[in-house]
Amino acid sequence: MGNNRINSPALRAKVCDAQQAAELIEDGMGLGCGGFTPSGAPKAVSRALAQRAADAHAKGDPFAVRLFTGASTSPDLDGELARNDAISLRVPYNGDASLRDKINAGKTAYVDTHLSKVAPWARSGFFGDIDVAIVEATSIREDGGIVPTLSIGNNQAWLDLAKTVIVEVNAYHNPAIEGMHDIVTSGIAPNGQFDMPIRKVADRIGEPVLRVNPDKVRAVVLTDEPDLNAKFRDIDEGAKMIAGHLMEFFLHETRVGRLPSPLPPLQSGVGNVANAVMAAFGDGPFDNLVAYTEVIQDGMLAMLRSGKMLSVSGAAFAVSADEAVRVNADMEFLRERIVLRPQDVSNNPEVIRRLGCIAMNTMIEADIYGNVNSTRVMGSRVQNGIGGSGDFARAAHLSIFMAPSVAKGGSISAIVPMVSHVDHINQDVQVMVTEQGLADLRGLSARQRARAVIQNCAHPAYRPMLLGYLERAESSRYGGDTPHLLNEALGWHHRFLETGTMQPG
Amino acid sequence: MGNNRINSPALRAKVCDAQQAAELIEDGMGLGCGGFTPSGAPKAVSRALAQRAADAHAKGDPFAVRLFTGASTSPDLDGELARNDAISLRVPYNGDASLRDKINAGKTAYVDTHLSKVAPWARSGFFGDIDVAIVEATSIREDGGIVPTLSIGNNQAWLDLAKTVIVEVNAYHNPAIEGMHDIVTSGIAPNGQFDMPIRKVADRIGEPVLRVNPDKVRAVVLTDEPDLNAKFRDIDEGAKMIAGHLMEFFLHETRVGRLPSPLPPLQSGVGNVANAVMAAFGDGPFDNLVAYTEVIQDGMLAMLRSGKMLSVSGAAFAVSADEAVRVNADMEFLRERIVLRPQDVSNNPEVIRRLGCIAMNTMIEADIYGNVNSTRVMGSRVQNGIGGSGDFARAAHLSIFMAPSVAKGGSISAIVPMVSHVDHINQDVQVMVTEQGLADLRGLSARQRARAVIQNCAHPAYRPMLLGYLERAESSRYGGDTPHLLNEALGWHHRFLETGTMQPG
Repeated sequence: MGNNRINSPALRAKVCDAQQAAELIEDGMGLGCGGFTPSGAPKAVSRALAQRAADAHAKGDPFAVRLFTGASTSPDLDGELARNDAISLRVPYNGDASLRDKINAGKTAYVDTHLSKVAPWARSGFFGDIDVAIVEATSIREDGGIVPTLSIGNNQAWLDLAKTVIVEVNAYHNPAIEGMHDIVTSGIAPNGQFDMPIRKVADRIGEPVLRVNPDKVRAVVLTDEPDLNAKFRDIDEGAKMIAGHLMEFFLHETRVGRLPSPLPPLQSGVGNVANAVMAAFGDGPFDNLVAYTEVIQDGMLAMLRSGKMLSVSGAAFAVSADEAVRVNADMEFLRERIVLRPQDVSNNPEVIRRLGCIAMNTMIEADIYGNVNSTRVMGSRVQNGIGGSGDFARAAHLSIFMAPSVAKGGSISAIVPMVSHVDHINQDVQVMVTEQGLADLRGLSARQRARAVIQNCAHPAYRPMLLGYLERAESSRYGGDTPHLLNEALGWHHRFLETGTMQPG
Repeated sequence: MGNNRINSPALRAKVCDAQQAAELIEDGMGLGCGGFTPSGAPKAVSRALAQRAADAHAKGDPFAVRLFTGASTSPDLDGELARNDAISLRVPYNGDASLRDKINAGKTAYVDTHLSKVAPWARSGFFGDIDVAIVEATSIREDGGIVPTLSIGNNQAWLDLAKTVIVEVNAYHNPAIEGMHDIVTSGIAPNGQFDMPIRKVADRIGEPVLRVNPDKVRAVVLTDEPDLNAKFRDIDEGAKMIAGHLMEFFLHETRVGRLPSPLPPLQSGVGNVANAVMAAFGDGPFDNLVAYTEVIQDGMLAMLRSGKMLSVSGAAFAVSADEAVRVNADMEFLRERIVLRPQDVSNNPEVIRRLGCIAMNTMIEADIYGNVNSTRVMGSRVQNGIGGSGDFARAAHLSIFMAPSVAKGGSISAIVPMVSHVDHINQDVQVMVTEQGLADLRGLSARQRARAVIQNCAHPAYRPMLLGYLERAESSRYGGDTPHLLNEALGWHHRFLETGTMQPG
């Protein structure tokens, strides 16, 4: 299985089983892994590592690693290790429920980091030692170049920094993927920076493989399994309405000349609402679309196939199980239209800004003045993490945040007097959309933004309460540019925690 | 006076007095002005405009403009117009006390904007029409090129967008400044983007003058007056202690190899603490310093003269009255060492990130988890605005925030359970410094950050209260990655507003 994928004799000699590879990893080590969504996450070695931790704990020995990845990974990595109490520190993002519980309980340290900053900060020593790298490969070339699978993450940084390298060669992926990746492997400054002369989403600046000193490779493990991709819910009516408001806005902006046609490169977040927006673009009036984005989902691939979208630059695929099969079958077609990049390039503010991207991300809640919480429920419990949303929202030409106006059957309003946590400051939120409507916040003062958000985005059940708060804050003695009543500002959240609803009793 | 500064015959024919120039401006117009600090702000025309507004109001006629500048300006522009109720909308920054009062009273709309985004958004029509541009010049070349004074701001954008242009030629400034400015005047995309191949702080990518279609120039007004620079307070003991902690940190980081020597380009905010830090660098062990910064103050100029600092890229001078005289006298020397840039270049995340800058900015308050409020007192009243701090803090390789640990004689703690407004999220704050000490937040979880901030930065009078809050939040039923008690989180601020102190009675 897969041995014919290893064309470097030096590395073919390192083939071993996953248990032997996992033995290279000791308690306390810093582990730099692939994985940006389940794409590219190690599989066999991570399962063996979890078993190693379980065995150590059964003997009363400590065993936990500091885990660094691209972004979220899979149940085989974050899930297995978390359930076995084998992660002491997690950087830079998590989407796994088991690990989330450990983090929110204060049992695992979590450093929620802008995804574009991980490699430069790791290279600068800001995170401590990276002892072992584990990367997934589709194949290894004769010259030792490693062809990645469906994401790259920070793997070049891990390969450069780690003393020990483990490669999983996964025979599941179509080897025709070779050529889709674009990786800068040399000329990287000690602070992790390098030139990025990307002026179109399809521009290439590196080579199609990861580079590693073969002497550092201590184990090559063969696998043959698809990524454990998460399911997305079907698109609901609310998400369709959000997408509809957004399409209307884009049409209007192109008509009045504030956006060009074809549209600038799109970035789209992940999830139900993002899926609905991509579906609306698929059925919509815009042609010759391009995307400079992070995660490539089914909707963008459908547009590449239909010809609506011409090219996509991204960090990772995150597709349905059916779509994963189609990706493998269509690899030659997709390779001509997709550039997969390391996340310090896919998310780099330089490129996002130069291309003038439109960033579309989802939020947990927003406040009347336009500040957005996209990570922490009731200010305290982390959901996933900021991921790449901060890279895109600030650098984009136009940053849009979206959510249903209420959650949990109406007991939570997504529009609140003051957000309980801020990930995106109002300066990074030009447009806000809920199923109720769209608020164009450009050029508005804080008090004007508040009225636009309340009238256009808030659910009618919460509108009078929000307007009441605003008016009382405006007429309060202290006043201000962003008037608040500090003894009430977080009262809605507190009420929810006490009574189960933000609505007064 | 100054007529010999106008070497273009076409523009020399447009010389008129300030009153005639002000007549070109009508109620409701959008006015794009120079001014980034008092440097480069219009003077005679703005005073005449304020008089025009006063006259109109005396007759019962409406008169107010939408005012767009580089950043803060001078009492002659923001102050005079605000006192005459002549500003309906202000973008992107304000430092004037009279205008601040109008904004906080809800009488003037204020759009507090990242300084690097103003030109691209204005060019894209996000702010509505820019009807008239007023720019200050040191001289006008024979080919019509306009040599700016001590800042450029967004003037090239205003000259491109406005239908009517007014130039103030200020004979105060040494004409030897010609050659210090670096302005991209062509090849700008409709969204305001252009190539920025700046790899060293001294690299130049444009030409030394602003360009304008001479047919649009309707008035050239002669002036001869220095900028009305604000006074900075003397450096106090607390600021010196902050600077001392920072120097110790930089020494340590260069010793362990996490920062190179010479240090990466420095960015320094404005004010008393920033002055202290620059003074400490002036006396400190670091040589061959360079700065990629926004505002150039006395301290950096002293280092250029002493040879400690080799070159500076900035958006504007903001110097003491004495220093302004020295700048004029030393212009040839400074011209070889300083590049003045438009603010969409001085503050561009592309360049800040590529150079790996160290950003040092001041804050009003920070919370235990590392989020920073740098603009809004008690969450409501704006002090100045975010300015360029967001451009630098997010794009920098290392972002540092500083403040005294208490204000108003100890009745306000700069370290609070939850900030009342967020300008800089914890991901953009690697190091926090008060006179009490320095907290290195890199690689720490939220709960670890809280302990570092409380122990190293909080004033001892507030430390037990902060630790008590943290411990009660951690052990609360809801828990979380960033545990908060939402009915207490803003209680310190509320108590201050009610009782005049954050200390419980």
